[in-house]
Amino acid sequence: MPYVNIRVTREGVSAEQKLALIEGVTDLLEHVLNKKPADTFVVIDEVDTDNWGVNRESVTSRRRREAAQ
Amino acid sequence: MPYVNIRVTREGVSAEQKLALIEGVTDLLEHVLNKKPADTFVVIDEVDTDNWGVNRESVTSRRRREAAQ
Amino acid sequence: MPYVNIRVTREGVSAEQKLALIEGVTDLLEHVLNKKPADTFVVIDEVDTDNWGVNRESVTSRRRREAAQ
Amino acid sequence: MPYVNIRVTREGVSAEQKLALIEGVTDLLEHVLNKKPADTFVVIDEVDTDNWGVNRESVTSRRRREAAQ
Amino acid sequence: MPYVNIRVTREGVSAEQKLALIEGVTDLLEHVLNKKPADTFVVIDEVDTDNWGVNRESVTSRRRREAAQ
Amino acid sequence: MPYVNIRVTREGVSAEQKLALIEGVTDLLEHVLNKKPADTFVVIDEVDTDNWGVNRESVTSRRRREAAQ
Repeated sequence: MPYVNIRVTREGVSAEQKLALIEGVTDLLEHVLNKKPADTFVVIDEVDTDNWGVNRESVTSRRRREAAQ
Repeated sequence: MPYVNIRVTREGVSAEQKLALIEGVTDLLEHVLNKKPADTFVVIDEVDTDNWGVNRESVTSRRRREAAQ
Repeated sequence: MPYVNIRVTREGVSAEQKLALIEGVTDLLEHVLNKKPADTFVVIDEVDTDNWGVNRESVTSRRRREAAQ
Repeated sequence: MPYVNIRVTREGVSAEQKLALIEGVTDLLEHVLNKKPADTFVVIDEVDTDNWGVNRESVTSRRRREAAQ
Repeated sequence: MPYVNIRVTREGVSAEQKLALIEGVTDLLEHVLNKKPADTFVVIDEVDTDNWGVNRESVTSRRRREAAQ
Repeated sequence: MPYVNIRVTREGVSAEQKLALIEGVTDLLEHVLNKKPADTFVVIDEVDTDNWGVNRESVTSRRRREAAQ
């Protein structure tokens, strides 16, 4: 009965990439803990870059600095 | 001081249904654990069907299969 | 595919009360949103009263004040 | 390695206010627990007022009552 | 900056298995979304079987039924 | 109605430090967003170092390396 919540910044994650995350996490839980795929929920949250902070700045600001370099 | 987070797929949940969830969960916590309604937070997250995986596929894909049957 | 997380303070919740919460939330989601019980996960987190704050104090401290009255 | 999730209602939080929350929480964790800012993630979730319940009503309904007074 | 929360029932997950989950999820996020391992947090929550419900019963009760068969 | 969840590793956080986190976060939300302290919940989760991964290793292993230096 695993529940896995993946939180990433909203920066253009495609449906194909989301599916790859769902498949990868489900397989991992089956291989490591013998959890049945039918019992594994994977929920992906995409978070606006203004709403995610790391090192005392938003990811919006970090991306701007990275792009300027 | 309960905090309840209900996560469902975003498939047309109406304001009336959201209110029914809020009322139902608040009443349940009052009846079972004697928690005061004023102290009970209920937060509903609606998740895009591409972002929810179960049984190694997205709910988008599951719904498509169900509709095809 | 609902996932419901109930967070309450750890103050002696019995296995019977936990089951009543699980049944009540599962029934609510079936009645309001037509969600299948087999697809509904309910996870209860019990949190130490030192670790829960409301109104700028811990629940430990609030309970002490309430008991003193 | 702290992870802090701030959930508030979606009622016009500006980018400046989000940054103030990110800075404030990061500084607090550094001062209280000596956590390095580079290791502190702060994620802000804005929740629609229809989706947040307290005291058995939605925040949408509470705001309407408050405005009417 | 991904944050991944894996929630499983507390049924004897070893430190080796936890590490396999941490490595597997971190690698997955690097391969699928090009996320740097240094920026990926993985947090595993182990939940008592009395506190996890599925299909209107606790996992404790489900395990008892499975063992009896 | 803010709800704030602070997740840190379980490495000897005292009740005084927990209270400082509760007070600091509550004050921050009052100053930045004008949220009433009575409506602010702060929940602190302490996570075992085996259960927290960063940079593809557990915090247990990271602490061991740091101590060896």
